[in-house]
Amino acid sequence: MRPVNASIITIGDELLIGQTIDTNSAFIAGELNKAGIWVRRRVAVGDVYEDIRIALDEEKKESDIIIITGGLGPTADDITKPLLCDYFGGKLVLNEEVLAHVIHLFEKVYRRPGPLLERNRKQAEVPDVCTVLHNARGTAPGMWFTQENRIFISLPGVPHEMKGLMSSEVMPRLQHAFADRLPAILHRTLFTAGIGESMLAELLQDYESRLPEWIKMAYLPNYGMVKLRLTAKGTDIVTLEKDIEPWYQELQQLANDYLVSPEDEGMEVVIGKLLKGNGKTVSTAESCTGGHIAQLITSVPGSSAYFKGGIVSYANEAKMNLLGVSAQILETKGAVSEETVQQMVQGALEQLKTDYAVAVSGIMGPDGGTEEKPVGTVWIAVGKPGKTQTLRLQFRFDRQRNISLTAINALNMLRKFIIANG
Amino acid sequence: MRPVNASIITIGDELLIGQTIDTNSAFIAGELNKAGIWVRRRVAVGDVYEDIRIALDEEKKESDIIIITGGLGPTADDITKPLLCDYFGGKLVLNEEVLAHVIHLFEKVYRRPGPLLERNRKQAEVPDVCTVLHNARGTAPGMWFTQENRIFISLPGVPHEMKGLMSSEVMPRLQHAFADRLPAILHRTLFTAGIGESMLAELLQDYESRLPEWIKMAYLPNYGMVKLRLTAKGTDIVTLEKDIEPWYQELQQLANDYLVSPEDEGMEVVIGKLLKGNGKTVSTAESCTGGHIAQLITSVPGSSAYFKGGIVSYANEAKMNLLGVSAQILETKGAVSEETVQQMVQGALEQLKTDYAVAVSGIMGPDGGTEEKPVGTVWIAVGKPGKTQTLRLQFRFDRQRNISLTAINALNMLRKFIIANG
Repeated sequence: MRPVNASIITIGDELLIGQTIDTNSAFIAGELNKAGIWVRRRVAVGDVYEDIRIALDEEKKESDIIIITGGLGPTADDITKPLLCDYFGGKLVLNEEVLAHVIHLFEKVYRRPGPLLERNRKQAEVPDVCTVLHNARGTAPGMWFTQENRIFISLPGVPHEMKGLMSSEVMPRLQHAFADRLPAILHRTLFTAGIGESMLAELLQDYESRLPEWIKMAYLPNYGMVKLRLTAKGTDIVTLEKDIEPWYQELQQLANDYLVSPEDEGMEVVIGKLLKGNGKTVSTAESCTGGHIAQLITSVPGSSAYFKGGIVSYANEAKMNLLGVSAQILETKGAVSEETVQQMVQGALEQLKTDYAVAVSGIMGPDGGTEEKPVGTVWIAVGKPGKTQTLRLQFRFDRQRNISLTAINALNMLRKFIIANG
Repeated sequence: MRPVNASIITIGDELLIGQTIDTNSAFIAGELNKAGIWVRRRVAVGDVYEDIRIALDEEKKESDIIIITGGLGPTADDITKPLLCDYFGGKLVLNEEVLAHVIHLFEKVYRRPGPLLERNRKQAEVPDVCTVLHNARGTAPGMWFTQENRIFISLPGVPHEMKGLMSSEVMPRLQHAFADRLPAILHRTLFTAGIGESMLAELLQDYESRLPEWIKMAYLPNYGMVKLRLTAKGTDIVTLEKDIEPWYQELQQLANDYLVSPEDEGMEVVIGKLLKGNGKTVSTAESCTGGHIAQLITSVPGSSAYFKGGIVSYANEAKMNLLGVSAQILETKGAVSEETVQQMVQGALEQLKTDYAVAVSGIMGPDGGTEEKPVGTVWIAVGKPGKTQTLRLQFRFDRQRNISLTAINALNMLRKFIIANG
């Protein structure tokens, strides 16, 4: 069984001047990978006719599938579609179905007054040698070409539209086209916190060396957490599921002290499940994270079942008036102190009437540090009525990263507290 | 003057299976671009010896500079460094200075007990044919190679470390190496909100067609905002600054109705400047955005000067107890209603004693929609004591995007309100 290879080509000057972070490639790669298609290379080129052509030539040498994103928007430089016509030997024709869809979107969904703009009308033009892929979420259609046993797919660069096309059109068609060549692929992910990548690798050194050829393990560090992923490849998914299980179980045991979840899910999802399972509620009292902890908790659909609310007490005044932190504590111990976060937690519990609360106060930088409390100093408290736990941490990064790390550590501490005080 | 071209090669299976979004390339491209170096291509390859070698061969054909990131971490598969040795004809040697730095980091900064792990010690090994670039922020050093008039730079993949190396080592050395070949480059960015990309392009069609050859304009849409960027290229920065000015002024006038800032700065920075300039303060009352608006405001260093705090009133109970929303309004009009956000704004103004406040309540999805108030329905209110403005919006995206769009629209409404009620 010859493996199926793919390349992703992203088009757009904005990718080469650093204005846009390419999130599309990661999504596309993830979808292909789940289906057992190996992405060999990702290439980003500018809005330059010749560079796009060269990239197509290069990638089709080794890849069965070439997915192209970008270059199709209403203000694009009109390079991609003419190029695809030249490349596949067709000409641009107005597609009536696409046009009807574009008109529908502008009239009914966007409710834009006046006649259709010429630049939007042109979005309904497609090379007459492609299969049109319906873009339910936008005006630029996807396009599917075949040439010398290769499949070329052109998708709009708007992430929301590209994602819709990948799920509804691209993946089903690819799975059909390569049904006889796709291996079974299985991922098992563990999610750890509180241990660095090196120490974890040390802990798992022996385990890793014993892994059979058909299982690969990857370390995926991300802001105070490390994901461990086992990838198994075989011919039959049922056999794989059975065979990987003991390895997966052993990994969970080895990483047990740091295990947040045996699944590929964020800390906020784990906490949500814990609270939902217990029928308990939580609230937040944030100073330095400015609402980020509440935002993480509420990023989970259905979080209103366990999150009642939070208080962002940035000013000392807010700490006193909304959370009942005492003026004396603020004066003698300071806003970034164990006593302050203790009172913040108890204040949140009282004000929001929840079973648990988490509070943070710190100095995120770049300014505001002192010798005693340098930038990166953070106090975290978690608690329930009558019981509070505190922790002091010291980060050494920039403002944004300090905020992220504070939030994730506070959530991890909350998670452990809920488990221990369930 | 032959232009200076660069390629960026990112190494790592995690980029090809969709687990990691490549933010490094965008940062590197941005830094190079600011210095007048054009990034021709970005290529991502897996941890595969042969694929990395092929990428190096291909990119050095057309690029003067090849920057490689990733593949150097303590759990990396030990492919990149041996490959670089082979490629440039050297051998791995222990670098005493790097070793001393690694030891220093583990003992003094990370405070990790016990002897140095072998895998960390190996990070001090470098090919003897490279110039070592000091990585002040981590254990993996940068490496600088030259071959046939090409410069190859290998950097660690950890963003924080890569960024430090780019600023302190890579850019100064590149600017020195290509001093006689780098053009003058000037960017001017405008930041608009409240108008889509197509309409903006229509508005600027004539202007765009009149732009001279040496100025390029780009549309950079992002969550309810569109950035417009003019890029001028020439031989002398002082002349460019003078010559671009009338074009830049004209663009500001044309986009005036939608202009958020004539600089490349976020909505939250603009609001911060307005408030600081007026000596005024703001607070937030958020339901559906769960703290995201407060988080955006406090992402700006120094925001404690004008942001006193916020209340995340997710549960109706919190809306009543913390913001004084009336039970009757919640019952008759619902939590997502004009009356509720009006009371939330006035509640925030009272509780947090600020000059302005902003409040939002909506249904972000995927569940919770009704026929009258479908998913994506949002009410926003901005106000000052005694005066409130409201707006109903309807989004049609997924939860995450609905939250982002709600936050940015609320902030834009706040910005306009502050200007009109200064």
